[in-house]
This record gives sequence, structure tokens and C-alpha cells, in this order.
Amino acid sequence: MTTTPDPAVEQAADELTRTVLASFEGAPERLRTLAQGLVSHLHAFVRENDVTDEEWRHAIGFLTRTGHITSDVRQEFILLSDVLGVSSLVDILGNARAAGATPSAVLGPFYVEGPPELPQGADVSCGLDGEPVLADITITDTAGVPVADAVVDVWQANKDGYYDVQLPDQEGPVLRGRLRTDAAGRLTFWTILPAPYPIPDDGPVGELLAAAGRHSMRAPHLHFMIAAPGRRTLVTQLFVEGGDYLDSDAVFGVKEPIIVPFPEQDGPAPDGRPGPWRRVEFTFRLA
Amino acid sequence: MTTTPDPAVEQAADELTRTVLASFEGAPERLRTLAQGLVSHLHAFVRENDVTDEEWRHAIGFLTRTGHITSDVRQEFILLSDVLGVSSLVDILGNARAAGATPSAVLGPFYVEGPPELPQGADVSCGLDGEPVLADITITDTAGVPVADAVVDVWQANKDGYYDVQLPDQEGPVLRGRLRTDAAGRLTFWTILPAPYPIPDDGPVGELLAAAGRHSMRAPHLHFMIAAPGRRTLVTQLFVEGGDYLDSDAVFGVKEPIIVPFPEQDGPAPDGRPGPWRRVEFTFRLA
Ligand SMILES: [Cu+2]
Ligand SMILES: [Fe+3]
Ligand SMILES: [Fe+3]
Repeated sequence: MTTTPDPAVEQAADELTRTVLASFEGAPERLRTLAQGLVSHLHAFVRENDVTDEEWRHAIGFLTRTGHITSDVRQEFILLSDVLGVSSLVDILGNARAAGATPSAVLGPFYVEGPPELPQGADVSCGLDGEPVLADITITDTAGVPVADAVVDVWQANKDGYYDVQLPDQEGPVLRGRLRTDAAGRLTFWTILPAPYPIPDDGPVGELLAAAGRHSMRAPHLHFMIAAPGRRTLVTQLFVEGGDYLDSDAVFGVKEPIIVPFPEQDGPAPDGRPGPWRRVEFTFRLA
Repeated sequence: MTTTPDPAVEQAADELTRTVLASFEGAPERLRTLAQGLVSHLHAFVRENDVTDEEWRHAIGFLTRTGHITSDVRQEFILLSDVLGVSSLVDILGNARAAGATPSAVLGPFYVEGPPELPQGADVSCGLDGEPVLADITITDTAGVPVADAVVDVWQANKDGYYDVQLPDQEGPVLRGRLRTDAAGRLTFWTILPAPYPIPDDGPVGELLAAAGRHSMRAPHLHFMIAAPGRRTLVTQLFVEGGDYLDSDAVFGVKEPIIVPFPEQDGPAPDGRPGPWRRVEFTFRLA
């Protein structure tokens, strides 16, 4: 990092920063705090790194392209926040406000509102090719008391790392569904083992990752969104223990407590299916 | 500012930040420095202010709207950079690299490439209503040696604060032109006194200013872009001494050395025009 040694420049920059901070003095409390905090850190960043006009123009162009590629079905600003670890940091701070609950994890770009309602024991993979997994899920409060009738949305990639919305030949939803816990707070369903997948990397964020020599892969995971009356809605993921990219997830979404084993099982599956299958068991705690 | 007192959260956040910083270790030197600097300051901002998920979503929405309003003729990201003082800060650092030169100032959104070529002594206002101003400009190098044949683009708002591109009934360019210095580095032209004007405030940046209780007005100024072979191109402005908003320019563009008097003159103008007129004299130094 270079610093600007010229005292006249230092003084001019100090005075500018003070003037900009003062311009937010009259803002409502929270806006003032956030705007002044942002200005302080942005100005410090620009000064410490002696950012040039050319670099500034590049940044303006990058943000402009990020805005223009963003649409109803693609959110490049969220992706940018993800790959800079900002989404995950906000997530960590949010978890701190839900003491005792299972850690949350980022929503990701593939959630679709209103997934198909499925009964207990359903196969969300609808028979898609892949290694069968029996998910045995329990939902409790932070004291361990079961939460009955919780609404649980699940969604995931297939064995090749694609979500249904990415498959050109797939009509209608698959590998996603809405299920409900029973009186004991329990929920079982069948699915298949998800594969790692790349985040969309054909836009400005992909360029940034490529320029930085970073890959765009996410560790394999199942998504969950769990809602129950009077409880904080939990958006989280379960990561497959032993899966690839757990140590270098492109969006920094992996957290130790939500890496879980999907052990291979012997013998036929409980539903009579032949061949190898896996089982995942997890208890989510809602605040 | 609130801080997060929970040591487990502090540790998780520290570890996340370290992981994100490490992900840029393999980037080319300058990108690594900038990306790591940005991540450090952004993460510090988020943590110090305990930014909530709701605030994060608001920020994503703000950036998305800023991107969508940006077009070939409107640059809302530059405006955002302007009102946060970032453009002006980059400008100050750039000036430090051009020791002895006249301070630069922001380009602003109203420059148009290839303005009409005008002869010495021309009236760039084309007879528009307003208080006549005779501009007497000299261009030198940092040692005071005149720069002949420098290309000088000038542009400005009219007496009501509008640029030609904002006037629905105006056909073709007015209050803008390209002139050249003579052998003595000198250039004179006629124009009219510019009025203060608001930056475009019907987009996300305007909302931000309104929410913060800030006005959107710029102090009255003439724009200059001065180019000469072997010299650093100077983009700057001359501010009208005694004009409104000099102390609260919405984009923090005002600098002491480029606030200049436009004194009222007695008697008829040198070109024989009757009535009151003003005169501005300034020497620009190119690095
Ligand atoms: Cu900082
Ligand atoms: Fe995912
Ligand atoms: Fe202007």
C-alpha cells in the first residue's frame, strides 16, 4: 500500500472527508450512522491505496455492467456481495441475534417462491438419476422442544450440479418442494446427493473471480427455508461432509455446524429400493 | 455505532474476513491490493455497524435501481460517487501526481464529445439571454511558460442553471465550444454568467440526498477541459466567487484555488455592447 506523503494533499483530503461526513449530520440517526461509516471506510480505502482516476473509471464501468446484467432472474449485486464475503458476514451477525438457533446460510440465487406441496416421505427428486438420500429432519425450538407443522422448503442441485431452472429440457419444478413437520417435529423425504456447482460466472463477477485466479465452485449442499408461527424464519444449508470445495466455497457459505455426514448405508433402503443409498439426519433449532 | 460483544461471533467474523482476504492471495499484485483493501474496509463497516439483513437487502435494491437507471446519457454510479465525495477524493489524489498544475475538478455528467470549433473572441452563448462575461484565459506550463495552440473545451449552464442538452427547445450545441490558445498561450471568448443547478435528483441518488436532508445544488461554475501535446490533460472548473452553494456544493467539487472573481465592469464592453458586463481572468497551469 502506498500512502500520500504530501502534507498539503493529506490536509485537502482530510478536509474533504470532514465536509462529506458533515453533510450527513442532519440525516435520521440510523442513516447518518451508516452513511458516515460508509464514507469513512470508502475514503480510507481510496487514500490508503492511492486509487487512480483510471481505476475509478474501471470501478464505475464494473458497477454499471453489474447493474445492466441484473434482472428479475439474475442478481449480480448479490453475487458480488457473496464473493466478497459480505453476504456471509451479514449472515453471521444475524445469527448472533438468534442465540441458540442453527446457523443460517445465504439464500442463493435459485430459490423459487411457492414450491410444490409434498407429503411426508415424498421423493423430491421425482426419480431423477443420482445416489438416493433419505433425509431425516427434526425441527425444534432453542430449548429442544419439537416444532410441529413447521413449513419446510427444500431445494438443491442434481447429480451434475444443475438446478431445475437451469435444465433446458426440464418442465416444472424438481428437486424442490414444501413439506411439513409432524406432531413430533419430524420430517422425512427422499432425494439424491447434490453435486458441487459453479455460481453464474459469465458476468462481471465471473470476470473478477477469473482475474483474481479464484474458482467459482460451491461446496455441495441442500437448501432449507424453515418457517413456523412465532419463530424466526431460518434460511440455511446442509453441506455434505467430505464434499469438494468445503474449504474454498466461492461464496464463503460453509459453516462448521452445518457440515453433516451423509453416510452410505448397507442393505436395501427402507422403501425397498436396491443398491447403495445414503442417509442424512439433522435437527434444526429455530429461535 | 454498536459493536458485537459475543466472542464466538467476533471469532467467526474474524475467521471469515481472513478467509476472504486469503482468497485474493493469488491475484495479480494491484488487484490483490485493491481487493484485499476493499474487503477489509467493507467488512469493518458491516461489523462496526452491525448491518442487518434488512439493511443489506435495501443496499442490494439501491444498487440495482442505480444500475437500471444508468444509461448512455445518465450515469447514476458517478453521481453516487460524487455525492459520497469519492470522485473528489480521487481527484485530489490525482492532483498530487501533477505537482504545480492547476487543481482539477470533476468532469460532471454534461460534457459532450466534439464540441463546435470556435474562433478566438467568439460568443459561446450565441446571444442567449444572461449577464455577459468576457473570459480572458492564459494557459502555461508549471514554470509559467505559455502553451500555444492548446485545445480548450468549455461548457456551462445558462442563466437558469440548464445545459443545452436539458433544454427541450434547444437545437444543437450552445454554451459549449472548442477554442485554441494563440502564440502567447492566450484565449478570449464571450459567454454569460452561469447559474447554480441541481444534479439529476429523480433517481436513487436523489432519494438518498432527500432522505439525508441534503440539497442537490451545485455552485455556479464554468467547465474546462484543456489538452496540449506532451501535457497532462486538465479537466477542471472555475467557480464564481460569491456564488451560492460554494460551501455546500452537492458533489464537493469546489476548491479554493479555482474560486475566481467575476467582477462587474464599468462602461461599455470591449466589443461595444452596452449595459453591465463582467470579466473573468485566469491562468491555467498544465503539468
Ligand atoms: Cu475502513
Ligand atoms: Fe445452492
Ligand atoms: Fe456543471
